[in-house]
Amino acid sequence: MIVKKYKKDSDVSYTLGMTLTIELLKTKPEVLLKVYIHPELEETIAVKELLSSCKQRKIPIETNAKVFHILSEKENCFVIGEFKKYASTLSNKENHIVLVHPSNAGNLGTILRSATGFEVQNIALISPAVDIFDPKTIRASMGAIFHMNFCYFDDFESYQNQYKHYHLYPFMLQAQLTLKEITFKKPFSLIFGNEATGLPISFLEKGTSVFIPHSHHIDSLNLPIAVSIALYEASNKK
Amino acid sequence: MIVKKYKKDSDVSYTLGMTLTIELLKTKPEVLLKVYIHPELEETIAVKELLSSCKQRKIPIETNAKVFHILSEKENCFVIGEFKKYASTLSNKENHIVLVHPSNAGNLGTILRSATGFEVQNIALISPAVDIFDPKTIRASMGAIFHMNFCYFDDFESYQNQYKHYHLYPFMLQAQLTLKEITFKKPFSLIFGNEATGLPISFLEKGTSVFIPHSHHIDSLNLPIAVSIALYEASNKK
Repeated sequence: MIVKKYKKDSDVSYTLGMTLTIELLKTKPEVLLKVYIHPELEETIAVKELLSSCKQRKIPIETNAKVFHILSEKENCFVIGEFKKYASTLSNKENHIVLVHPSNAGNLGTILRSATGFEVQNIALISPAVDIFDPKTIRASMGAIFHMNFCYFDDFESYQNQYKHYHLYPFMLQAQLTLKEITFKKPFSLIFGNEATGLPISFLEKGTSVFIPHSHHIDSLNLPIAVSIALYEASNKK
Repeated sequence: MIVKKYKKDSDVSYTLGMTLTIELLKTKPEVLLKVYIHPELEETIAVKELLSSCKQRKIPIETNAKVFHILSEKENCFVIGEFKKYASTLSNKENHIVLVHPSNAGNLGTILRSATGFEVQNIALISPAVDIFDPKTIRASMGAIFHMNFCYFDDFESYQNQYKHYHLYPFMLQAQLTLKEITFKKPFSLIFGNEATGLPISFLEKGTSVFIPHSHHIDSLNLPIAVSIALYEASNKK
């Protein structure tokens, strides 16, 4: 099989790096199809463990320098895992994050890392939205993606209809209450808009809108920062 | 003069994009040396205002497509400001952020954006540390860099000797107290380590060490996320 640059419509994606590949092997070994090894990879104890664990599970290992040129832009990548993309569903009891039209792969990854850190491990993505299996997302998540449940929805209404019992908290600059003033009722949905445009004004009518106060010298907080501060306040992990 | 790719030892740096260039012109017009315009730039009202403001201040404007190929990797960049790097000093009354050996330009920019948002506008950088004038830092800061005071120090002791009256709060995973348990005494220094390695263990002895609790499924929070959550809790801007 010829390895090509990752595309959204591909059936497989990649963990670029040893730590990510080990995390995948620990959490979802059943989807790991193949492990590529760079010829210059040093045989450390961790590497030996990874390889022996792959052999036990009959996951093929291939030494191949070319694959690294095709898939990885970083120079310090010596292990790549190829895995089958998998479906996931959201819990209907646990708290959710809802991202409406997120556009940046790195941002989504950083959000997954914080979400796992603060134990809000269900994320809804309202289309159009960035691809959660983009290797850049996986890399920025530092492997947290494999601890998350996720689901794409065509529009916010489809999400809302399925999770009618959730308490909605849209985060928007026009909101009435600050984050410190809110007592989050569970199960909750923390809702955030696109990086550049935020949430449409219509979200002011949905549930309890919230804002994180900041000085007038900035237009807004960076999206992963806003999501993480919200998670920090709303989660039990304080 | 021939424009070259940005280097750390250069006397000038660049604002890549119209919004950044306008922010520079508003906050530090005295350092703006030249404005480059892409031939395909549309003449919107904002563009006209920028150009007329440059003319008033006798800042040269040059239409030049080549400069954009050299300096900008992004396709949506049509205005570049060239500015003289400037020195800055820290307040000895206002609160500080201290970054020990930060390595990533984008992360530093995101931290500057949050710092400006939460009004902790003095940042100390302990060398070796990423270049605050790297165009990637400026871009990620969304212009917040121009609202910040900053200073590089050869080592943490040099910083500490100069700001003996500051209350030190090193953020580290081995700390005794959680962020929620701390009442920050002012003026404070919020201290953070390198992205990959954190702070050396010796910082446990300096001031009051703090940690932000997170699940065991992640090794640590992303650096700009940790700094921003700390700023959110410690600052008056809640």
